[in-house]
Amino acid sequence: MPHTTPSPFRVPEIADLHDAALAAALQAAIDGKTKPLGSLGRIEWLAQRVGAVLGTATPELREPQMLVCAADHGLAARGVSAYPSEVTHQMVRNFVAGGAAVSVLARQHGIALTVVDCGVREAVPEQPGLLSRRLGPGTQDALEGPAMSAEQCEQALAHGADVVRGLPGNALLLGEMGIGNTSAASLLLARLGGFEVSDVTGAGTGLDADAVLRKIGVLRAVLQRHAQAREPLAALAAFGGFEIATLAGAALQAAAERRVILVDGFIASSAVLVASKLRPHLLQRCVFAHRSGERGHALMLAHLRADPLLDLGLRLGEGSGAALAWPLLQSACALLNQMASFASAGVSQSAIDAAPTARAEPELTAADASRKPAR
Amino acid sequence: MPHTTPSPFRVPEIADLHDAALAAALQAAIDGKTKPLGSLGRIEWLAQRVGAVLGTATPELREPQMLVCAADHGLAARGVSAYPSEVTHQMVRNFVAGGAAVSVLARQHGIALTVVDCGVREAVPEQPGLLSRRLGPGTQDALEGPAMSAEQCEQALAHGADVVRGLPGNALLLGEMGIGNTSAASLLLARLGGFEVSDVTGAGTGLDADAVLRKIGVLRAVLQRHAQAREPLAALAAFGGFEIATLAGAALQAAAERRVILVDGFIASSAVLVASKLRPHLLQRCVFAHRSGERGHALMLAHLRADPLLDLGLRLGEGSGAALAWPLLQSACALLNQMASFASAGVSQSAIDAAPTARAEPELTAADASRKPAR
Repeated sequence: MPHTTPSPFRVPEIADLHDAALAAALQAAIDGKTKPLGSLGRIEWLAQRVGAVLGTATPELREPQMLVCAADHGLAARGVSAYPSEVTHQMVRNFVAGGAAVSVLARQHGIALTVVDCGVREAVPEQPGLLSRRLGPGTQDALEGPAMSAEQCEQALAHGADVVRGLPGNALLLGEMGIGNTSAASLLLARLGGFEVSDVTGAGTGLDADAVLRKIGVLRAVLQRHAQAREPLAALAAFGGFEIATLAGAALQAAAERRVILVDGFIASSAVLVASKLRPHLLQRCVFAHRSGERGHALMLAHLRADPLLDLGLRLGEGSGAALAWPLLQSACALLNQMASFASAGVSQSAIDAAPTARAEPELTAADASRKPAR
Repeated sequence: MPHTTPSPFRVPEIADLHDAALAAALQAAIDGKTKPLGSLGRIEWLAQRVGAVLGTATPELREPQMLVCAADHGLAARGVSAYPSEVTHQMVRNFVAGGAAVSVLARQHGIALTVVDCGVREAVPEQPGLLSRRLGPGTQDALEGPAMSAEQCEQALAHGADVVRGLPGNALLLGEMGIGNTSAASLLLARLGGFEVSDVTGAGTGLDADAVLRKIGVLRAVLQRHAQAREPLAALAAFGGFEIATLAGAALQAAAERRVILVDGFIASSAVLVASKLRPHLLQRCVFAHRSGERGHALMLAHLRADPLLDLGLRLGEGSGAALAWPLLQSACALLNQMASFASAGVSQSAIDAAPTARAEPELTAADASRKPAR
């Protein structure tokens, strides 16, 4: 019962952001600041990335939006989570009431929070801060058949794009909630990344070692059941969930609009994984907030060639890690826009810095800069 | 020409913060929040740490103070830095004018910035935001004799304590500026930590590989010159600098007052290293902001048994890394004070979480919690 009926989803075109002139202008601005070359490390990469997405050497982040998509999973009945499915509904109410981690952190940083019920088992009524874009009372059990139909998958993608179109600002933070959704993320990563399922399956919200082994057994059976589901959207429909599909649509739309996309943990990354298989240039718009404590996320990030900002052993989801990383993006912009240059501040450059270097050459791209090791 | 003449410095007593009842109360508060046990990773350790320092399970950080101590180093004339000593003076002016990285980041986060001229070669006039606590126009060349006299060292410590006594708030961020001061920090670490100097000497502001080798040669000769300077304050006087000694005094005073101490990079850590050799319990009040890209900092942190919050390849100093990490401390407090509990939000606990665990036992200390691996 979707609130609106969006037109059939077409995966938007997402252009290559490569712009050598802009990358050179950003690098020159960074290198002209009153600091040794490269001494702000990953923050310099972040300034390059945000500048490239927003298409300017003086980027300003406006009205950041945290999108938390929630849904239940049929597979949860197989004992793949330490929590019962009711918790999805309870936590959605907690998000809206302001008591969840993501609520607290979004408030701390002035990030607007939008929660979307994409198919929680017991529906949560629409109210300020909560949108209903339900595709059913949770996905089907993926061991029995596909988690969702191709039509539901397309509709979830359309919902995500539609929600983003309605949000202001130029930065989108991706979060989620759904008991059982580490299973869906592990399945998507195993299939689309080509990993052995035991290498990408973890404790989720807190399974013990035996329960993780049982979870791996269930997931292996699900992968066999859907051996033909090899394309991104086929895999997404086979494994779920509604919240991951909605987030994938949101990410595609945000990328098409050149918003900065700040990705939370393992499950949000799985939505980006699916979206990036459809539109690889989407990754140019992404910043990965943190390396989760959930087993599989490190391999996911490596597969996406992503180097996250934080590594704090977080494994909560909700968008909490994205909210924790958000001030670093603001810092990158503030440093770019507000730091004095050597010239303006009357500070001497070192003999090394003042000499022409490869960093001043216009061929240098943001991608190159991101691979440059910090000294 | 110090602005004030503080009374002779006595190293303050710094009590053991160990408080099993408070640690248990903090852990119970953290574990009662609506999230899986341990799922906020290092942020949970941070909440424990800040709560332990401030002596409450509902800690609130007030009026954070960034203290940036600056001075020049006689050893800089030996070519141990890529920049000339004039840059110390120029950067101090830049701090006060608001154009340096630390100025921008302190402004972003509402952190008050106090810069102290502890002995910059060319004095910087007192003005709003800048205190003059000079001990001379830089230290002496440590290859010729001690960088400072025992009296200067004591006076610098007293200055640092005196400055902190005059600052409001319950959190102190430690930053520094001084061309040549990675050399002093490497010397202090080599001597007080028992490391081979080549393992703890890096590129500083940007030396090339050959220059680093020459720097190591100079530092090895300095260590030999002061082979008898083995006690913390003797080593500090032998190697310098004025800004490191002032920061050490500031850290001791802040610890005695139970302020949270947020330590920036390699040089600020060297001040804490010296202070902690005098008063080991000081480390209970410290949070290490980041692992610097400067060679030696990782070993310094390991020696101090410190696990920093960020690892972003920063190697700027100034307090920039401390300012970047500051919002994480605010988040830890906000989560502790504002998140709903399972009971208050009507959220079901997992069968695992609801069962009694070792985490609920009052024997659990903050130190224990910090060693608990994230799952």
